[in-house]
Amino acid sequence: MAKQLTSRSENYSQWYNELVVKADLAESSSVRGCMVIKPYGYAIWERMQRALDDMFKATGHVNAYFPLFIPKSFLSKEADHVEGFAKECAVVTHYRLKQNPDGSGVVVDPAAKLEEELIVRPTSETIIWSTYKNWIHSYRDLPILCNQWANVVRWEMRTRLFLRTAEFLWQEGHTAHATSQEALEEAQRMLEVYADFAENFMAVPVIKGVKSANERFAGAVETFCIEALMQDGKALQAGTSHFLGQNFAKAFDVTFMNKENQQELVWATSWGVSTRLMGALIMTHSDDDGLVLPPVLAPIQVVIVPIYKNDEQLAAIVEKLQPLVGALKARGIRVKLDDDDTKKPGWKFAEYELKGVPVRLAMGARDLENGTIEVARRDTMTKETLPLEGVEEHVAGLMDTIQRNILQKAKDFRASVTRTVDTYDEFKVEIEKGGFLLCHWDGTPETEEKIKEETKATIRCIPFDGDKTPGKCMVTGKPSKQRVVFARAY
Amino acid sequence: MAKQLTSRSENYSQWYNELVVKADLAESSSVRGCMVIKPYGYAIWERMQRALDDMFKATGHVNAYFPLFIPKSFLSKEADHVEGFAKECAVVTHYRLKQNPDGSGVVVDPAAKLEEELIVRPTSETIIWSTYKNWIHSYRDLPILCNQWANVVRWEMRTRLFLRTAEFLWQEGHTAHATSQEALEEAQRMLEVYADFAENFMAVPVIKGVKSANERFAGAVETFCIEALMQDGKALQAGTSHFLGQNFAKAFDVTFMNKENQQELVWATSWGVSTRLMGALIMTHSDDDGLVLPPVLAPIQVVIVPIYKNDEQLAAIVEKLQPLVGALKARGIRVKLDDDDTKKPGWKFAEYELKGVPVRLAMGARDLENGTIEVARRDTMTKETLPLEGVEEHVAGLMDTIQRNILQKAKDFRASVTRTVDTYDEFKVEIEKGGFLLCHWDGTPETEEKIKEETKATIRCIPFDGDKTPGKCMVTGKPSKQRVVFARAY
Repeated sequence: MAKQLTSRSENYSQWYNELVVKADLAESSSVRGCMVIKPYGYAIWERMQRALDDMFKATGHVNAYFPLFIPKSFLSKEADHVEGFAKECAVVTHYRLKQNPDGSGVVVDPAAKLEEELIVRPTSETIIWSTYKNWIHSYRDLPILCNQWANVVRWEMRTRLFLRTAEFLWQEGHTAHATSQEALEEAQRMLEVYADFAENFMAVPVIKGVKSANERFAGAVETFCIEALMQDGKALQAGTSHFLGQNFAKAFDVTFMNKENQQELVWATSWGVSTRLMGALIMTHSDDDGLVLPPVLAPIQVVIVPIYKNDEQLAAIVEKLQPLVGALKARGIRVKLDDDDTKKPGWKFAEYELKGVPVRLAMGARDLENGTIEVARRDTMTKETLPLEGVEEHVAGLMDTIQRNILQKAKDFRASVTRTVDTYDEFKVEIEKGGFLLCHWDGTPETEEKIKEETKATIRCIPFDGDKTPGKCMVTGKPSKQRVVFARAY
Repeated sequence: MAKQLTSRSENYSQWYNELVVKADLAESSSVRGCMVIKPYGYAIWERMQRALDDMFKATGHVNAYFPLFIPKSFLSKEADHVEGFAKECAVVTHYRLKQNPDGSGVVVDPAAKLEEELIVRPTSETIIWSTYKNWIHSYRDLPILCNQWANVVRWEMRTRLFLRTAEFLWQEGHTAHATSQEALEEAQRMLEVYADFAENFMAVPVIKGVKSANERFAGAVETFCIEALMQDGKALQAGTSHFLGQNFAKAFDVTFMNKENQQELVWATSWGVSTRLMGALIMTHSDDDGLVLPPVLAPIQVVIVPIYKNDEQLAAIVEKLQPLVGALKARGIRVKLDDDDTKKPGWKFAEYELKGVPVRLAMGARDLENGTIEVARRDTMTKETLPLEGVEEHVAGLMDTIQRNILQKAKDFRASVTRTVDTYDEFKVEIEKGGFLLCHWDGTPETEEKIKEETKATIRCIPFDGDKTPGKCMVTGKPSKQRVVFARAY
């Protein structure tokens, strides 16, 4: 097969890169670091968007749209934020091209230089808070619960499809509140929404927690996160939710009149997930044969492949299959009957395995005779032959079964590579094997930095759940309140 | 009322600008020419997106995503295209900022100059056709039927909210075909989709036709369009669909092996509608009291306002209304019960009229006693008191009635200001009154240009439907195949 993949054990990174391209999810474009999201990949992203958008609306949020460009001076208004985001960004300096007098094409028109450069948004806190200033006057104007679906640009030097690209798609929620407590609750609520989405739609188990100061968002007071674990034992930050305190309200002078008629600074949150989730989805479930998609997000949930010797047989099989197609559609299942006669069944089998279609049904001459059909599961790669009659019920049941099975499999894998480590010597050995290491840490940025420099491991989060027994830092021996989660990460 | 609008007769343009802001649809941002689409405006746009997206999918299209940036050299590859789009665009020249040594903030890092400047996409033909080159090898790879929902930037000097902004949101379809005929049919099919959407969702009647050469998209062989008429008698181009011939295939060397094993250039279309449709929606139906929204697109279709003297009465009314709210929701109607006790009923009435909510229900103490409810229509501003029991059926019926009524009203208005004109002298008088003028034209760009210079009127389109009787050009007296549609336009 031309499409055969490098195996995960051979070269995990290459396996991923090949899979993304060969399964028609995305590819690199002519613009350095920018990807093209191909229709099959985009169809998965659309399902993610729809599910998340429904969840945001169910928690009281509305969508809006803010400008792509941010005046350079806005970035500087919040000291940490400019440190974090001004470094690598796309800068618009001119607004016109003109014909080169030498006839060689178009050149930048020097007469069309902007007075102030514009930055292509790397994130929108600054432009949004400069807008909220005009929207917020009284406590009656609060809370504001806005979300935006948008593209953002961060000029990354080393890019990988979905995981780290110069331009990516995301949603960014930006909320404004009258009290610290309310903002904090909002940030935590949205983290729960992300965790719910990751587990119940993507079938990706995540650890919920709070970031250490070193790993905090530039401008945040607290950053909450969900951390997933990939099959190579590396962690992937799958979503973040920030409690921004009054930092952006201060930077943009956003105050409100409270019920006691006093001016106060507004409290803020922001939260986002991006097309990076596609990377998490792919790397959590897929195998050496290709993608494995959770049925909830699969653009095609069931594919039906007729196996035939001649046109007459094909026609008979397709006719026999029509009621099944109808019955599956009636149950809301996304089904495709592939009767393309320019491709062989074997080619189709491999193709739909590569594309991660959860269930494949096949019917050949003998099935036609016997009134049976072959049912194959992508997650377990098992097959069974069942009576055609009533098979739609079995297939419908498989949607749930597969969704639960791949989540459980991912949970089991995570459990198998999560362990407690008590000494730094042991840590240095264990971290090479990958996985989550639960260790005591003294809470200082210095110790965290030392561990990162020496082992490339970072604190993924201080987990909300799990063992809260105090102990001693594995590096310094100083007291530690609870174990934190270490890993090497994407 | 603080929110009172300038009337249309007083100053139509100011009425529009005020309405967009006061109805919370959009506002100008701190970035010149870029707008903020506010939640209420975005909720309408989302409904438009959803309906269009469903229609695109029903006609076999899929979504994908292509880069925001276009290398400068790409624009130059298609001669007409660069003429049309290189002039006013946002140019990214650098990819990093750095702290100003004088401590005054951040400045562009001169060391981070791009080798080749990047243009923020004004439209994506070039980047997409440079991608299609790798997707298309054989006739089996065709057709490609992709659509993209995206933001684009055209550096307009004079901007107006929704109608003409530097950044706007749109969808752009880009299809690739094996034959000229198939591409032409695709371009026409999508024009029909746009016309269907305009009439049946937006309740905006449109004329379908083809553009004259002067008004053609830069790079197209033919541009089809739908033209709407605003209440001030000016035309608004609401959507375009382009047959691009083989122009972009030539520019990017995109060929395919046909069934006869010969290399051929690929045929193309592109088609788009944008947030400009919001302008068309607003200007077609709204009045001096505010927005009038078609029920199909209204974020809130029915608002219920309790009228009460004290908390006890409010509680009794709200309790009485709950079954109605449930009954309306059960019919899929988007209903809001506004029991906010910080606002007076009169304020609410004005507010929901401003926001164009199609139906307002009000219940006071007497209604409570009598088992009645007041039903007010936004489109006709009429009220009637009806028995509460069974009112949900009447209200549900009103959704259709109002949708049809505002379409008919717009059609009647258009008919009242559409007339045939046979002499250029008469034309100069009539064009001052606005509306569509159906006139004979000799088919030359020179005559069209002369008319535009002397009267500011353009040919909106050569209409598909209507009178095809030949005649003589009103300016030159030369033969004309059919009347064309003239108007002053947005």
